Amino acid sequence: MPSFSIGVDLGGTNLRIAAVSSEGQLLEKITLGTKVIQGRDQVIDEMCAAILGLSAKCKTDREFLGAGIGVPGIIDMARGVLRKSANLPGWEDYPVRAEIERRLEVPVVLENDANVAALGEQWLGAARGIANVATVTLGTGIGGGIVLDGKIWHGMNGMAGEFGHVTVEPEGHPCGCGNHGCAEQYASASAVMRMAREAITSGEAPELARAASSDPEFGAKAIYNLALQGDEHARRIFRTFGRYLGILLADLINVLNLGMYVIGGGVSSAWDAFAPNMFEELRERSVVYAATAPDDPLRISVLGDQGASFETDSLGKRETIITRALLGSDAGLYGAARVAEAAA
Amino acid sequence: MPSFSIGVDLGGTNLRIAAVSSEGQLLEKITLGTKVIQGRDQVIDEMCAAILGLSAKCKTDREFLGAGIGVPGIIDMARGVLRKSANLPGWEDYPVRAEIERRLEVPVVLENDANVAALGEQWLGAARGIANVATVTLGTGIGGGIVLDGKIWHGMNGMAGEFGHVTVEPEGHPCGCGNHGCAEQYASASAVMRMAREAITSGEAPELARAASSDPEFGAKAIYNLALQGDEHARRIFRTFGRYLGILLADLINVLNLGMYVIGGGVSSAWDAFAPNMFEELRERSVVYAATAPDDPLRISVLGDQGASFETDSLGKRETIITRALLGSDAGLYGAARVAEAAA
Repeated sequence: MPSFSIGVDLGGTNLRIAAVSSEGQLLEKITLGTKVIQGRDQVIDEMCAAILGLSAKCKTDREFLGAGIGVPGIIDMARGVLRKSANLPGWEDYPVRAEIERRLEVPVVLENDANVAALGEQWLGAARGIANVATVTLGTGIGGGIVLDGKIWHGMNGMAGEFGHVTVEPEGHPCGCGNHGCAEQYASASAVMRMAREAITSGEAPELARAASSDPEFGAKAIYNLALQGDEHARRIFRTFGRYLGILLADLINVLNLGMYVIGGGVSSAWDAFAPNMFEELRERSVVYAATAPDDPLRISVLGDQGASFETDSLGKRETIITRALLGSDAGLYGAARVAEAAA
Repeated sequence: MPSFSIGVDLGGTNLRIAAVSSEGQLLEKITLGTKVIQGRDQVIDEMCAAILGLSAKCKTDREFLGAGIGVPGIIDMARGVLRKSANLPGWEDYPVRAEIERRLEVPVVLENDANVAALGEQWLGAARGIANVATVTLGTGIGGGIVLDGKIWHGMNGMAGEFGHVTVEPEGHPCGCGNHGCAEQYASASAVMRMAREAITSGEAPELARAASSDPEFGAKAIYNLALQGDEHARRIFRTFGRYLGILLADLINVLNLGMYVIGGGVSSAWDAFAPNMFEELRERSVVYAATAPDDPLRISVLGDQGASFETDSLGKRETIITRALLGSDAGLYGAARVAEAAA
């Protein structure tokens, strides 16, 4: 009998749920109005009701294998408990997995949101067919996920992939983690905003200042639009972004030598503005990249946008590919469904 | 029938060969006078003759499984060929493995020297019983090796573990690799010498200048001895060393979240001079380390020197251990024997 599993994205303001077949086909997808702010118990109530409704529909001709739930934070995989989550107050040390398993009566897996996004891209997205992949998710901060031999690499405590806190500038901008010069202080939406504010405060960036005071939704996207229109200060921000993202990637490539590094998250839309500097740093700073870079790295990124799949390993190609994510915010849904299936 | 394999260290000025039982017992160890400078063919002749002599002795009561050869450079594992080696001119693209297999009539594995050192420490040294380990070898440069689930992590092209070229200071000292501010420009024997020369040139380090002009063997070790005697300039060099080694380790911990990081190589003898700054950086710069550090990291390092084995995984301890290597230059011999055994 064919089978399916449920993937849940409990990360953002909305709660999203998908039923995915074992072959990777999206069967159903819903977005609940439930806000995480309404509190743990209500979120769990509505999430479980929705999963049961969705699975009832799919169960007519498929076996329901289990549910995977992607959450922001550090997870104790053995106990199925959130150890730490800034965005889910009240969830820490509560037996989330056990409670949801009790209600759904199938195996449930809690996973870090950046990890499931990485697995989703590896299973069905930009890195399809590539066994060893890291994903860098550029959002408010930087999320990271590592997939080795097709499986999420958790490390000893489920804390592997903290790419956002790799030091890229030892005496750089202070980070909430206690460090100075973390990657996410230079290559994230918050970093773009900080650099814009600094440029505005300096009094030398009139276009940015005008946009900031007139655009109620002034943010990384508006700054990217200014860069596209040629504003030098906005462009400089994304050059800095690209430089430090390049340093982070160079470090990852030198350490891990994976087949592909996938750049996702909202700010990856600004690719055109940061990618040239990113590739420049990569060539200078990674001996491994220099030895394995494709002749035209940007061309491959464009192919990536069109949904090409790089069977790098099976074709015997041995190039290091840096490319954009393909699945957007669905990567986490697919990846969460995949971990549930793998655990079943 | 019990078995054994041969490990070879073809790295330095001397050629060292060991016969090691499958249980990790050293059966025989010899050092040949053969110099690598005498050329590839003579090295292979004498090495194979010595291996055959050694194995003949051990074969009386054990099965000879194969030979592992640790070499400095980048190896094409599939073809058994050195792709690149600065220290073994004339060896590149020569069918080393096939030639040695032909003579020995057992399976032969070529491996990177830093990788076999990491595997040796994981099998029988500081990281015995720990499945996931990285080794940082502080020599003329920095060597790196990653062991995941008890096996060497090669990455896509056998180039994983290039820790020496992780960027720790973006506008830092130029490196031969083309980058600026690579870790090995700050935390290696050459880096110690460079910093000493700079201090001497500045005219403000009279003790270093005196030692440099009077000690024919002036080097990292002599500078460490001056640091031990309290010379402020020598101490400052090792503080800088510790700072940047700490940045490198913080990056590795944030990315990989392994159970143990083993610091080996000749310059690791200066541990007392660099470790305090290293640990200081680690706590500031790695969220993962801060969450998993032992209460007293230095105590554990000292235990490490006494040969204790940390069954971190099996005891369910979840601490990140930074410790000194235990096997010295024998780590590579043991690790090379281990890869031969695993491949047999």
